[in-house]
Amino acid sequence: MPATTPPESGPYAYPLLIKQLLHTPLATRPGQEIVYGDVRHDYRTLQARIGQLAGLLQSLGVKPGDTVAVMDWDSHRYLESYFAVPMMGAVLMMVNIRLAPEQIAYTLKHSGASVILANREFLPVLDGIAGQLPALRTRILLDDEGGALPDGFAAEYEAGLRQATPVTRFPDFDENTRATTFYTTGTTGLPKGVYFSHRQLVLHSLAAMATLGSAHQQGRLHRDDVYMPITPMFHVHAWGLPYVATLMGIKQVYPGRYLPGRLLALIGREKVTFSHCVPTILHMLLNDPASAQTDLRGWKVIIGGAALPRVLAQQALARGIDIFGGYGMSETCPVLTVAQLDGDALADGEADVALRTKAGIPIPLVDLRIVDEDMHEVAHDGQATGEVVVRAPWLTQGYLHDPAASATLWAGGYLHTGDIGNIDAGGYLRVTDRIKDVIKTGGEWISSLALEDIIAMHPGVAEVAVIGVADPKWGERPLPLVVTHAGRDVTEQEIIALVTARSQAGDISRYAIPERVRFVDTIARTSVGKINKRRLRDQHDAPAEPGGAASP
Amino acid sequence: MPATTPPESGPYAYPLLIKQLLHTPLATRPGQEIVYGDVRHDYRTLQARIGQLAGLLQSLGVKPGDTVAVMDWDSHRYLESYFAVPMMGAVLMMVNIRLAPEQIAYTLKHSGASVILANREFLPVLDGIAGQLPALRTRILLDDEGGALPDGFAAEYEAGLRQATPVTRFPDFDENTRATTFYTTGTTGLPKGVYFSHRQLVLHSLAAMATLGSAHQQGRLHRDDVYMPITPMFHVHAWGLPYVATLMGIKQVYPGRYLPGRLLALIGREKVTFSHCVPTILHMLLNDPASAQTDLRGWKVIIGGAALPRVLAQQALARGIDIFGGYGMSETCPVLTVAQLDGDALADGEADVALRTKAGIPIPLVDLRIVDEDMHEVAHDGQATGEVVVRAPWLTQGYLHDPAASATLWAGGYLHTGDIGNIDAGGYLRVTDRIKDVIKTGGEWISSLALEDIIAMHPGVAEVAVIGVADPKWGERPLPLVVTHAGRDVTEQEIIALVTARSQAGDISRYAIPERVRFVDTIARTSVGKINKRRLRDQHDAPAEPGGAASP
Repeated sequence: MPATTPPESGPYAYPLLIKQLLHTPLATRPGQEIVYGDVRHDYRTLQARIGQLAGLLQSLGVKPGDTVAVMDWDSHRYLESYFAVPMMGAVLMMVNIRLAPEQIAYTLKHSGASVILANREFLPVLDGIAGQLPALRTRILLDDEGGALPDGFAAEYEAGLRQATPVTRFPDFDENTRATTFYTTGTTGLPKGVYFSHRQLVLHSLAAMATLGSAHQQGRLHRDDVYMPITPMFHVHAWGLPYVATLMGIKQVYPGRYLPGRLLALIGREKVTFSHCVPTILHMLLNDPASAQTDLRGWKVIIGGAALPRVLAQQALARGIDIFGGYGMSETCPVLTVAQLDGDALADGEADVALRTKAGIPIPLVDLRIVDEDMHEVAHDGQATGEVVVRAPWLTQGYLHDPAASATLWAGGYLHTGDIGNIDAGGYLRVTDRIKDVIKTGGEWISSLALEDIIAMHPGVAEVAVIGVADPKWGERPLPLVVTHAGRDVTEQEIIALVTARSQAGDISRYAIPERVRFVDTIARTSVGKINKRRLRDQHDAPAEPGGAASP
Repeated sequence: MPATTPPESGPYAYPLLIKQLLHTPLATRPGQEIVYGDVRHDYRTLQARIGQLAGLLQSLGVKPGDTVAVMDWDSHRYLESYFAVPMMGAVLMMVNIRLAPEQIAYTLKHSGASVILANREFLPVLDGIAGQLPALRTRILLDDEGGALPDGFAAEYEAGLRQATPVTRFPDFDENTRATTFYTTGTTGLPKGVYFSHRQLVLHSLAAMATLGSAHQQGRLHRDDVYMPITPMFHVHAWGLPYVATLMGIKQVYPGRYLPGRLLALIGREKVTFSHCVPTILHMLLNDPASAQTDLRGWKVIIGGAALPRVLAQQALARGIDIFGGYGMSETCPVLTVAQLDGDALADGEADVALRTKAGIPIPLVDLRIVDEDMHEVAHDGQATGEVVVRAPWLTQGYLHDPAASATLWAGGYLHTGDIGNIDAGGYLRVTDRIKDVIKTGGEWISSLALEDIIAMHPGVAEVAVIGVADPKWGERPLPLVVTHAGRDVTEQEIIALVTARSQAGDISRYAIPERVRFVDTIARTSVGKINKRRLRDQHDAPAEPGGAASP
């Protein structure tokens, strides 16, 4: 990554660097606010602090190509690192603070981080893994409490900024220089590192601004909105919105740790109008006692990370929230689709909730397809399903130091999301399952999630997970694992009859009608509460069981 | 320009090519309309016809790197050439049909065009210059009338498309490949060629969509708008909006030749909501007899090419038109700034017309500065003036085959617009003069336009042009050239007193107060009606005249 200064003369080739996102907001809205707790400053100060942070890091020996980790809740300081670290030519590594300490140690080590900016709250974790991190030579304390600087720390952030000689002119360099890296975790294996370049983040910001801005009425972000993330900044760049908000020059509110009462208070006090979060957090906010006292009308919220449940969408709409889905993943920067309503969809009140709960329509430049196993596209009829594969200018080009997984990710020249979905005639994607959880039977793909939704409607069913079990004739057959409510007697025949009825109504393929149902006491879940289908398959797909008699 | 196909496997590096603009509209709005006269088809047909046009051109021997010229009014066919020609790796050359035939011949020859698509209406011009164009080997007729194919033409467009073997898969290649070229004319010298790459047009489209979409209320383009250009497609890509409209998947209306009655009828019939034009055309439309019968409320119009006059803005606003300025030039693709109102500006009714008539605020990624002759930035106080210099990802990297002019254009590493302007505290640019028309006196820059505006307020003045004349003490001094209304007696003293009073009121520098006024019979103008200051200086800046006595 050779750092070069702009030419003194001649045409400027204009590399797409993160620093270039700052031109417009600084020229047009230098007095716009950035809020964190009691801290309230403006974009001029943001610019000054970016220069000071870079100066501090330089004085501590950070060079282009070095990796600088951050371990913090959502803060104005995190935003500053989003700019200062890449603008120096260094790589920003966002630590997933929800991982177990051993996994955090693994990701820090794997990323090659030599510097960390860590919030005081995470010192016990850092201390516990310090012995495993010989390359992590410099620590900077992020602190709202003003306590003493702990041993082994080179500086406290605010004092360091005050003393730093600010960088006033950031260099030009190759736009393909790596800007950020972070880790994604599945139900199995070690965390995998993804990475994004300056070019990718600039293009993602432009395309996200273009798509969010240009919606007709519903689900749009405009330049007088007030932005607050409720998807953490360590998670896929907080969906890229801090960069978008900065480019737009809008007011930004950073809420620290996500405490429902604090989030609701900030929405009211700062007049927040645009956020994004996972369904669980929105559910928590709407059911918090403080929720009733907060006027949420006009609050626009993109839901991602998991499908937006219909009931939650209706509950939010009843509160006047403009709620809608979005879709992407760690590997995709993340935004691929947004469930905005325009034109006919906007005019069709019937379609409203159905479309808002989909993954959405592709944003500019996204070439998104649903394909069969031979990479042939399937019909866009809202029924036919295939794997979601994608090209866009902002997809990770692989997994860090993992050529085998990278090759699988990009098999056939498209990034494989590992998700199964369908696309309707209007271009709206619905994600129906993870490909590893889909059941392939008799040449058809059955969504385990769709089958679970049907079985869960039986009043006696407390929990259900559907897995595919090997079958010599059909390849796989669905096996529902059911936990019943205490004291309720549910029979296999009732479950099969329920699915049969729904299949006859056209809601699901007849191939989905199970021959057997297994009643269990518990369903294995992962550490974050997701159903662990891999373990369920290990537990329940016993090859000794007779198969082959099934005849859907 | 090596044409390569996408990799069959491995990460896709995603070049920014014009073909990539089509993914989202085709996936989400394939049935959206494109209208030209009685022709009405959809985006699916646009895609099919792009493939057919490329097939036709291939069959006629067009190869990557070839230059294909188009000579047409605004049409669906022109839109198809905007895509098909660059997507083949060829260069689209847009012929300025308003130039004199000799200039058209010069630009065609200079661009190296080997193929031309020409509307039947321009055959007399083409025939007249045919002898000068040995390299122009292939002609295709654009025709709405269905007449016979003239001699020397290889095909008629529609018949050619029907017979072509369509290109169904366009190749990938270097995003820096040249996509378009056209010529800019000044008051002197030969036309100069500018050129733009795929990357530049994609980035311009994204940034324009982002800025037009994300305005709060005023001057915004959303996905349910209906677009019709009234700045010709041969002129700076019709300000880039056909690419933006296509990327957004919105309804597009192409009006052919600009006849006021037809334009107004289309606005009414097709419910056009978004256009762009020069002040002259809007003035013509508003004063056309058919205007009174057309409901123009809600029509959004960007004005560029010349400053938006206050009176025209007020007249348009009174008709319910959302009118606002924009700024750019042939060298800049073109959009640099747009005079949208957000936040405080939107809330401040007083500021409304004043801001709408400015050039506007920079769009994303535009690094726009006003600088003195040493390239130092001047204050953003709405008063201090300097030359507008700029960096953006979509500026021509030079003039075609003209290294000397290219070096001047990019002196100091910024593109020199040749315009003088000021920037206010809100970041709004106002362009006050062309640098070649500005008067440099006693270390100050005086806007000849501002001085003309003041003198024009004298009721006896019919026309005025202010030029700078050489002065040994002050460098230059302003010399007003005044044509009086017939029968009105205006004295030099009255003019001087008028400027002095306005100077004392703070409206213009005291350096602008002229010592002399020259009364003339006519003021020289260019072929397009602009004041020809170069000729006026030749006529009136006589070195024999005594100077140096001036004492502002």
